[in-house]
Amino acid sequence: MELKTAHACFGGAQRFYEHASREVGLPMKFSVYLPPQALMGEKVPALLYLAGLTCTEETFMTKANAQRVAAELGMALIAPDTSPRGANVPGESQAWDFGVGAGFYLDATREPWARNWRMESYLLSELLPLVSDKLPIAGDRIGIFGHSMGGHGALTLALRHPGVFKSVSAFAPISNPVNCAWGQKAFAGYLGEDPSSWTAHDASELMSAQTRAPYPAGILIDQGMADKFLMEKQLLPEAFEAACAKVGQPLQLRMQPGYDHGYYFIQTFIEDHLRYHASQGLFG
Amino acid sequence: MELKTAHACFGGAQRFYEHASREVGLPMKFSVYLPPQALMGEKVPALLYLAGLTCTEETFMTKANAQRVAAELGMALIAPDTSPRGANVPGESQAWDFGVGAGFYLDATREPWARNWRMESYLLSELLPLVSDKLPIAGDRIGIFGHSMGGHGALTLALRHPGVFKSVSAFAPISNPVNCAWGQKAFAGYLGEDPSSWTAHDASELMSAQTRAPYPAGILIDQGMADKFLMEKQLLPEAFEAACAKVGQPLQLRMQPGYDHGYYFIQTFIEDHLRYHASQGLFG
Repeated sequence: MELKTAHACFGGAQRFYEHASREVGLPMKFSVYLPPQALMGEKVPALLYLAGLTCTEETFMTKANAQRVAAELGMALIAPDTSPRGANVPGESQAWDFGVGAGFYLDATREPWARNWRMESYLLSELLPLVSDKLPIAGDRIGIFGHSMGGHGALTLALRHPGVFKSVSAFAPISNPVNCAWGQKAFAGYLGEDPSSWTAHDASELMSAQTRAPYPAGILIDQGMADKFLMEKQLLPEAFEAACAKVGQPLQLRMQPGYDHGYYFIQTFIEDHLRYHASQGLFG
Repeated sequence: MELKTAHACFGGAQRFYEHASREVGLPMKFSVYLPPQALMGEKVPALLYLAGLTCTEETFMTKANAQRVAAELGMALIAPDTSPRGANVPGESQAWDFGVGAGFYLDATREPWARNWRMESYLLSELLPLVSDKLPIAGDRIGIFGHSMGGHGALTLALRHPGVFKSVSAFAPISNPVNCAWGQKAFAGYLGEDPSSWTAHDASELMSAQTRAPYPAGILIDQGMADKFLMEKQLLPEAFEAACAKVGQPLQLRMQPGYDHGYYFIQTFIEDHLRYHASQGLFG
């Protein structure tokens, strides 16, 4: 992996990397914030942050204001890109909600996407092992969170890979993609027209199928009540809430009056999320 | 003035406005963060933030992480654009350090810039009166700060307009523009080739000409020591330091090891600047 740029930030290091990805078959970019404790040689816990549609590995690090609290807590932050780039699949950039910038954190099974759109395998089998190996990050103390499409990614990956993540939270996640326009378009494109293949990537369906609470200490979700995508029924947090209730999964679903879907909303509540993860076993 | 977008943020309101500017002769954009106290009808003090080359009215609000502390302190933030846009002066966008995005916060006297490039009059005679009139901002409790070209703007406007600003601070300011390449290019272009007209817009020259300390409670400057523009002698904080020493102006010039010129540097120290201004009489 190649270090592209580095910036001092709250006594730690804000770094941007690029590497040749085996899983994706293309160069992939990601960013890492290392708190001061990591620069002194200590292996630190980390949060994997998954961003939303159209975002890049830079969005969270620039706009979310997470580094201050990460530095205080001694926690690294890892932010991958939101899709492969440079595959030159026909039509990959025609829509903002499918293709480039819209990987949905799954492995596509349908051509022409199946070769490169392998974000789930990329994150689990490649990126997390890589940063745990090459950086002072403790691979057995990772939490996951994300926003919108990345909130979908955080919830589904946390449910599909038990034991990998100590804790999970989300901002305005796409909570029931099989029942919203974004999810139906993406799943049909990446997984095929048969909806029975979709449920394995739907947070509400996955939760509903649990036999007991997978995260017994609780899951935290913040959702703005002035979020236009909530009103357009793209997010459907009530479906995830019902699934959690069904299986006894504790959930803090905080409906935040007046807040919209953007990073001014995220920066307002980011500190709560970092402190929530810190309280969930990341520090042993 | 027209409200273009608004976002809830830390219990306050992040707003983006546009208005037809009399001084500039074109539409101008600016952003305002109003803390919760202002939304309850209270007139609050404000900081005017001037951004650097290539930035817009959005840069500071997105990247500097200032809203959290502004909300806590009950302080508004005002960020104008960095130049006129849409004047269609020949060559206005040919360089990133002159013309569009590079107004240097002065009134140009040389054609073809003199008609529109009137950032000093715009800020002092138009924008500050406008926001004090139309928003819950106390026009007699304003501080000023800025970054790079905007640090130059903050220092020079604070020295050229005694009594307007209660307090002044800067991040990596262009401190002695008559002696650096950026300043020489901009001043020659906007003010003409005669350097004797430039000194009235040079922070070090202006400070050096004072008969007593204009800000007796002190000025705060943060400067990264890994800032490439410091090494390239564009910033010259030592000239401003010498001028302050000469006239007895207290100055905290904090040289920050490892930090560069960007917003990861600014976000690290923004809280100190807001608390510094809050301690300088903004709250009466």
